[in-house]
Amino acid sequence: MLTVIRDAWIVTQDPSRRVLRGDVVVEGERIVSVGPEYTGDADEVIEASGDIVMPGMINTHTHVAMSVMKGVVDDLLFPDFLDKVFRIDSDRTDRDLDVGTKLGCMEMMRGGTTTFVDLYYSEDVIAEATKAAGIRGVLCWCCLDERYTTQKGNPLQNCRSFHSRFKRERKIVPGVGLQGVYVCGEETCLGAKEFSDAVDAPMNLHLSETREEVNNMKKATGMRPAEWLNSIGALSRRAIAAHSAWLTMNEVRLMGAAGMSVSMCPVSNMKLATGGVAPVPEFLREGVNVSIGTDGSTTNNSLDMFSEMKILGLLQKSSRWDATVAPAQTLLDFATVNGAEAVGMGDVLGSIEPGKYADLVILDGHAPNMRPLVPENIIANIVYSASSLNVRTVLCQGDAVVRDGAVQTLDADEVMDASEEIWRELCMR
Amino acid sequence: MLTVIRDAWIVTQDPSRRVLRGDVVVEGERIVSVGPEYTGDADEVIEASGDIVMPGMINTHTHVAMSVMKGVVDDLLFPDFLDKVFRIDSDRTDRDLDVGTKLGCMEMMRGGTTTFVDLYYSEDVIAEATKAAGIRGVLCWCCLDERYTTQKGNPLQNCRSFHSRFKRERKIVPGVGLQGVYVCGEETCLGAKEFSDAVDAPMNLHLSETREEVNNMKKATGMRPAEWLNSIGALSRRAIAAHSAWLTMNEVRLMGAAGMSVSMCPVSNMKLATGGVAPVPEFLREGVNVSIGTDGSTTNNSLDMFSEMKILGLLQKSSRWDATVAPAQTLLDFATVNGAEAVGMGDVLGSIEPGKYADLVILDGHAPNMRPLVPENIIANIVYSASSLNVRTVLCQGDAVVRDGAVQTLDADEVMDASEEIWRELCMR
Repeated sequence: MLTVIRDAWIVTQDPSRRVLRGDVVVEGERIVSVGPEYTGDADEVIEASGDIVMPGMINTHTHVAMSVMKGVVDDLLFPDFLDKVFRIDSDRTDRDLDVGTKLGCMEMMRGGTTTFVDLYYSEDVIAEATKAAGIRGVLCWCCLDERYTTQKGNPLQNCRSFHSRFKRERKIVPGVGLQGVYVCGEETCLGAKEFSDAVDAPMNLHLSETREEVNNMKKATGMRPAEWLNSIGALSRRAIAAHSAWLTMNEVRLMGAAGMSVSMCPVSNMKLATGGVAPVPEFLREGVNVSIGTDGSTTNNSLDMFSEMKILGLLQKSSRWDATVAPAQTLLDFATVNGAEAVGMGDVLGSIEPGKYADLVILDGHAPNMRPLVPENIIANIVYSASSLNVRTVLCQGDAVVRDGAVQTLDADEVMDASEEIWRELCMR
Repeated sequence: MLTVIRDAWIVTQDPSRRVLRGDVVVEGERIVSVGPEYTGDADEVIEASGDIVMPGMINTHTHVAMSVMKGVVDDLLFPDFLDKVFRIDSDRTDRDLDVGTKLGCMEMMRGGTTTFVDLYYSEDVIAEATKAAGIRGVLCWCCLDERYTTQKGNPLQNCRSFHSRFKRERKIVPGVGLQGVYVCGEETCLGAKEFSDAVDAPMNLHLSETREEVNNMKKATGMRPAEWLNSIGALSRRAIAAHSAWLTMNEVRLMGAAGMSVSMCPVSNMKLATGGVAPVPEFLREGVNVSIGTDGSTTNNSLDMFSEMKILGLLQKSSRWDATVAPAQTLLDFATVNGAEAVGMGDVLGSIEPGKYADLVILDGHAPNMRPLVPENIIANIVYSASSLNVRTVLCQGDAVVRDGAVQTLDADEVMDASEEIWRELCMR
């Protein structure tokens, strides 16, 4: 199968961050040519004259199955929020995880996200639904101390079994999850880290989202969360620390030295009003790899990486009274090449280059909110002006999962209709 | 002409904030029925089963003609930003104002905005372009002291002539503009206020956007900007103060006592990193009418009221460490009923009620980012989950200006193509 995307603005995100006008050629799962006009035979030609082709975005922190829970816990104080979410979460069935995952995947693919990192339990159910949706899931089974969990059996053992069962799936990357230091003792953290190293799997964890987490850790151990993780040897270059909003410079340096990634979740932090602002310039200076996550639909309530890039930039600029912080190109890097690095797939994802997987997003260049569109403002337009719904067509590993705005892989109406039934079952209690 | 919008979720924004399922009937310019199934004859039936109908949004502060200047001045320090914008602005021609206005109107109508408040010079050119676009412009001719202006003639006199010429146009509301206390002395401010009162026209002004403005005023007069305006008698219930980010409680009280409106521009303030956060809860407590504006495309770079509602909520919550501040229903009120109040048209705009103008927006209810969709989460979904491009169809004063995402009133490609020529002429110098 050979597909040509014809005459587009190509935002390559290659090492020189080139923007080209021309053709992108996809053969099977991979990109084979970027830029030159293609004159050979093709199975399919996608006319994209004046449209934009950009790399599929990588959402490095979400809880996809929660997408059926939109609008249940808004505008609440944080303890009230947690109470209600935990109560609902403990009642969930495989069927509603399946529907929630499919709905969330549809929203993400419809919005130009082709890879997501998930942190949840029952990732086996989520994996099957993600396979049906056809985008790439880096699915991190949530580990925590047995005394805190509602999972059957030992969470780390569940994670190992899940990994073993799904490690050969085409677009599923089974990973390791850690809920956070508030429910994960030394044995759990080290066990997770060692397993992640042993099988070379990404590890997604919550880190320093709230002051309470930091204060409690300090009281219990005399150390802040990242200091403590460092002291037991649990920091890792395979780790993606979500939120990372309440950190000291010492912690940033430790994370940089370990080669860690962070997933910035600005909308979640702002909407929950937990008060922290992640130290993005310091991360960059100390060699921490910065990426972006939407968090789940109860805190956002959207899985829109365009919106998340813009709001991350706005929060960084405004909180530092410095408009030069986090410029547009840097924000786009966070959502693409850095996201690929975070999940350990920088060699095959994150940019439009021959040999990489064809994870491609075509944005409508004929929409007034994207114009004027010239090479000089194309990055700014993507980051500051675009909407997820400017997305026309999406390929994930060569497969067209969205065409002209329509999801190709699932019965969209069936999933959406089921989501309301589940909302009523779960959220109206 | 009788139009029926059939079987939608109707977000009325009426005094009880009812959400109904049913039909909206439009006869000519006005809404004649809301809710009951309509069984009579109709000239047009718009099938909207499961879609959302909401009032057209009201953007209470922008500079629409700047929409051709996207991506020119991003990520710069504020003085560098001003230098570049002023340099470009002084070179503008009527033709590029015309194209800029049409492009901005297309973006707004495509995004569910049916009324906008503009602050600029050459509002006569902007008025003609807005008429062609078919949405409602509250066009405030910018007044400032003669020694600061590049306008030909006296700005206040230009404003009077403009008002006289356009006061009878169907969807144009000529208004009075004040650039700000930094270039408007007592005579200009009072002249503008008196004219606004005499002809009952809205007055849009910049107020306390930056610390420098406040500090300079304090140095020159011993008073802060709103205190000084109050001392000369220039505060007014017809005034909409944009930004209003650096205010004391005393100023908030003075503004409340005068019955003023404010236009919150959170994206602009955050992107320029000017540092202030408007005191929204205090405005509400003191009786200031709070509305929302996108500001112009050089500071945002989007005229998207959905995004602006969400980000206003996020900024308020996060800056106060209180997630209960600015809940979803309040944010939607700002963008609809309060906007109508701000422009002095609360009797005919802002809600879906019989007798009001048919300013109606139909949102696609069959998009994954809007589901699950139940009456209990519909407001949250509009404010926290929707994108401007969820908009399907838009009526302004009964006229269908957008149908199924396509602008009906202008040659969209012609305007968009012209925008790139202008970008090169203006911005590449």
